[in-house]
Amino acid sequence: MPAANPILIPELRVMIAEGDAQGLREVAEELHPATVAEFSEGLDPPEIWQLLASVPVERQAEIFPYYPMSRQVELFASADRHRLGELLEAMAADNRDDLLRELDPVFVEEILPLVAKAERHDIRMLLSCPDGSAGALMTTEYASLPADITAGEAITRLRSQAPDSESIYYIYVLDGERHLVGFVSLRDLILARPTSLVSDLMETDVIRVRVDEPSEQVVHKLARFDFLAIPVVDDENRLVGIVTHDDVLDAVRQEATDDAQRIAAIAPLGQSYLEAAVLSMTWKRGVWLTILFATAMLTALVLSQSPLEHGWLIAFIPLVIATGGNSGNQSATLVITALSTGDCKLTDWRKILRREAVLGLLLGTLLAVPGYLLAIVYAPSAAAAVVIPITIMAVVMMGTLVGSVLPLLFRSVGLDPALMSNPFVSAIVDIVGIVIYTTIAVAVLD
Amino acid sequence: MPAANPILIPELRVMIAEGDAQGLREVAEELHPATVAEFSEGLDPPEIWQLLASVPVERQAEIFPYYPMSRQVELFASADRHRLGELLEAMAADNRDDLLRELDPVFVEEILPLVAKAERHDIRMLLSCPDGSAGALMTTEYASLPADITAGEAITRLRSQAPDSESIYYIYVLDGERHLVGFVSLRDLILARPTSLVSDLMETDVIRVRVDEPSEQVVHKLARFDFLAIPVVDDENRLVGIVTHDDVLDAVRQEATDDAQRIAAIAPLGQSYLEAAVLSMTWKRGVWLTILFATAMLTALVLSQSPLEHGWLIAFIPLVIATGGNSGNQSATLVITALSTGDCKLTDWRKILRREAVLGLLLGTLLAVPGYLLAIVYAPSAAAAVVIPITIMAVVMMGTLVGSVLPLLFRSVGLDPALMSNPFVSAIVDIVGIVIYTTIAVAVLD
Repeated sequence: MPAANPILIPELRVMIAEGDAQGLREVAEELHPATVAEFSEGLDPPEIWQLLASVPVERQAEIFPYYPMSRQVELFASADRHRLGELLEAMAADNRDDLLRELDPVFVEEILPLVAKAERHDIRMLLSCPDGSAGALMTTEYASLPADITAGEAITRLRSQAPDSESIYYIYVLDGERHLVGFVSLRDLILARPTSLVSDLMETDVIRVRVDEPSEQVVHKLARFDFLAIPVVDDENRLVGIVTHDDVLDAVRQEATDDAQRIAAIAPLGQSYLEAAVLSMTWKRGVWLTILFATAMLTALVLSQSPLEHGWLIAFIPLVIATGGNSGNQSATLVITALSTGDCKLTDWRKILRREAVLGLLLGTLLAVPGYLLAIVYAPSAAAAVVIPITIMAVVMMGTLVGSVLPLLFRSVGLDPALMSNPFVSAIVDIVGIVIYTTIAVAVLD
Repeated sequence: MPAANPILIPELRVMIAEGDAQGLREVAEELHPATVAEFSEGLDPPEIWQLLASVPVERQAEIFPYYPMSRQVELFASADRHRLGELLEAMAADNRDDLLRELDPVFVEEILPLVAKAERHDIRMLLSCPDGSAGALMTTEYASLPADITAGEAITRLRSQAPDSESIYYIYVLDGERHLVGFVSLRDLILARPTSLVSDLMETDVIRVRVDEPSEQVVHKLARFDFLAIPVVDDENRLVGIVTHDDVLDAVRQEATDDAQRIAAIAPLGQSYLEAAVLSMTWKRGVWLTILFATAMLTALVLSQSPLEHGWLIAFIPLVIATGGNSGNQSATLVITALSTGDCKLTDWRKILRREAVLGLLLGTLLAVPGYLLAIVYAPSAAAAVVIPITIMAVVMMGTLVGSVLPLLFRSVGLDPALMSNPFVSAIVDIVGIVIYTTIAVAVLD
């Protein structure tokens, strides 16, 4: 659970108040960095800085990225600038990039001069990649080797590169101009005879992404091929970074939440629910609610013109439009999730529409039966009551078609199909549903 | 893209027809296994088997799991039983388990005797773990070592274990009774002096999961700690398997899709949209549509008793209920996704309700303004028109509260909050909305 562990906080506070550097060091040194962050998250920023100060900056840099992003930003704002430069130098490039993207650009320009020149170049390069691109997800820390050395030499060189954490497991083979020519796993190097050449061991059919490819493509390729990491190249096939499995996992979870929020007509919060400011949330929900409200005003207009003067027909209005909306929402959600997981493509549109037409017919028939039974109770005659089952069938079929066509249309013009949110589908189905209902009622009863 | 590449299929067909084993072997040997599966997915089962027959069974076992599950089942049903035993022996334990869970249990009992005894034991153990548990996600292939050897000896032993694919990167340290006492990464072994003892290099604070823990816990821990794999132990802390990052990524994507489908009131399909049988889909959607239909029938009942005899009030019915439903859906989706990603916990319920009450007030005020302007057009007097803005404020506040309370209630009794689907929230908001509308209209107009 991301929330702070309330049990340890009093103990940590006592150690901080007493200046018990030894005790603090034990906590910050022995546990997994994620656990240290979890346990200390509930402290005030100066207390957290005091805890971090008990260990070397390399260890601080391991712990820091596990605090929630809002907390990292707060910690940076409240810290002595001098220590920020050191911490930024020690942090992994991708974690650092994630944080710097959240900070005020003016503040970033103020603290960058405190970072060593070589790192500064890396930072600017990563920051220049647009959000949502492979470049924004990648890290610049990776292991690389030339092709013309032996497996034994390769392992010796890796020892001296000693790359951070897990980026040692896939080693990219580069030529003199840093073009990506192959890759070899640490496993293959270990299992090979020490005298084998890297050029003989390496895989030359390397799945890669371009630095400007959208992050969905990166997720899709890494998930499909079960890689630990995927290399990122520029237009001339020069290696510029790698995207690792843990960043992809985070991206997948974020995407899924964003999609679910878009489907419910909320501009994605982009941060955790409890952390989002109430006013920003009012805006992100209000803008869509207002658009939907404007659409729903049309139903009032249509209904005020409608000759549904019979009292019993009015009682069925919410039933008719809810049923159309629900079947439309089901279709829209299925098509949106199938498009975003790659289960369906735009070219499958004929299959999708055929499927939804058949389903609309079956589901419409299923619901027409109880609808008719209820209508008989209210309608003046069993003959008049048929208005309801006919309307329900028509509205369900219309709902499934609208719900499946709209996301496909959005995708075909290059927009996110999840923007074709369920409430929007419902709004359209509401209006068309009332027109259908009125038309059928007039036709049957007159 | 998971669909077959249509360009290569004719070429593959020609090679199969001509019995060009050399050409087929090149295709099946040179490309990434996922690419081989993708290119050949569109072939008929006998053609796929002929393609696979061109390479050794170890390579077949690498390619096979990349076919979509429905295709794997079909291939198994159509194959010579003898080759199935060999293929099952060569497959990775987790991929094999995924497939066997999809097959008819009678068929599984028929083919298991064709598998070597040692593997059969593993298969039965994995199959006995309930769906949705850590045990069902795990593989039994992992690298393990005792604590009392040196790093140099450890690497030599790993060479002889030569574990499959990436499970070599984390090595679990076991005592004589297979109790999990620590873990060491291949990186640490490589970087250490060859004479260092494993017991000095190993991390003893191992994050682990129990075999019967729900898979969400596994996903949560692996994502939080950025591991490549997480060890699975039994009640007595004996290592029984590991769950790897790629299986977690698949589980996360599946969970997100299931959640989105539940939120739209569809029993999760559990397979790809285009692959699901139309009748099973009719059932999975129909059962919820029928329940929602029954709820919507109540709105007809309520409305038929309601004294909303003024024509202009009737025109606003869909607007009022759509607005309540939309704000309720937003709240429900936000709370459901926040609970499922771990952003909120049940104990945050006070914060959540306070937040939603404030938002309901703000959003209600926002929408009351255009509502009043429209109402003036239709209402007999500006005084009568105030029914609409008051109703809208009340309905939006009710919607946000119902939408946030219901998922919390479901979670508190141990049910999946996503079951508290948006259409269900809408249905409840519809009924209560009509009651509110009627009450306010009577109070203001009489």
